[in-house]
Amino acid sequence: MNQLNIVTQIAVNQWELHISQATQLLNQLSDEALNRQVAPGKNTGKYIVGHLIAIHDRMVQILSIGDSEHPELYKMYVKHPDGVVNHLKTVQELRNLWDVSHARITKLIKSLPDDDWLTRHKAMTDDDFKANPLRNRLSVLLNRTNHFSYHLGQLRLLIS
Amino acid sequence: MNQLNIVTQIAVNQWELHISQATQLLNQLSDEALNRQVAPGKNTGKYIVGHLIAIHDRMVQILSIGDSEHPELYKMYVKHPDGVVNHLKTVQELRNLWDVSHARITKLIKSLPDDDWLTRHKAMTDDDFKANPLRNRLSVLLNRTNHFSYHLGQLRLLIS
Repeated sequence: MNQLNIVTQIAVNQWELHISQATQLLNQLSDEALNRQVAPGKNTGKYIVGHLIAIHDRMVQILSIGDSEHPELYKMYVKHPDGVVNHLKTVQELRNLWDVSHARITKLIKSLPDDDWLTRHKAMTDDDFKANPLRNRLSVLLNRTNHFSYHLGQLRLLIS
Repeated sequence: MNQLNIVTQIAVNQWELHISQATQLLNQLSDEALNRQVAPGKNTGKYIVGHLIAIHDRMVQILSIGDSEHPELYKMYVKHPDGVVNHLKTVQELRNLWDVSHARITKLIKSLPDDDWLTRHKAMTDDDFKANPLRNRLSVLLNRTNHFSYHLGQLRLLIS
């Protein structure tokens, strides 16, 4: 393995570890628990679950490894705070979306050749990227993995 | 910049971003807020602050870039859950430790040459590392940055 192989493997492994830990946590939490706020007056568990799916669905497009399949979630769970949009997904719908979306997203992530991780992502122009080569696809994946941890720490509070 | 320069720079930048975001959050939270639990029956804000300092202090030793300066914190804020150890640090002591420790730790992190980030960390033997080159110093830093995010998501709940 060369240096880039090692680095991308670490980043992809950490992504997959987050998926598996979060999935395990969701399986442990009842629908009733996910309907609760993680702390008084804060987001509900189900809102955070929808938020993570929406951000990860959008990430695929930013990485240019596929299309966003659920742009409606971005509006519901990112642009609008919890409690604003009516007719949000049910917990059961979110559980299904979680599994299907993450299976797809992780497959797309794993199919990107290592050499492509240090190239620019879609939200940047070529000129921007020349000026700042740090803003590549790998930085997007690492950033979204941190964001994933951030909300996992909150979801974990729903365990009684 | 070569590939390794780019990757280590991304990882170190993300670490520094976490420090600056967390420091900003702590400055925003009153002592009274940090004395509160982040959710009913869960860790207090000050315990989480102590926990982060303890884990980061220990990380320096694992990365072999310096010594652990506060091994007593590891016992207080990692080995034992919140509410078990008496005479924990006050919020003011933790605020001071936060600034001094993180200034030192970040300086040590930034002084490690890029080529050394893909070498083994101290918690591994040479043989273990040959079998699994992914378990290097970079993976430790990325892992601890994720852990940092995890608890930042909880501390953020203390904002009224």
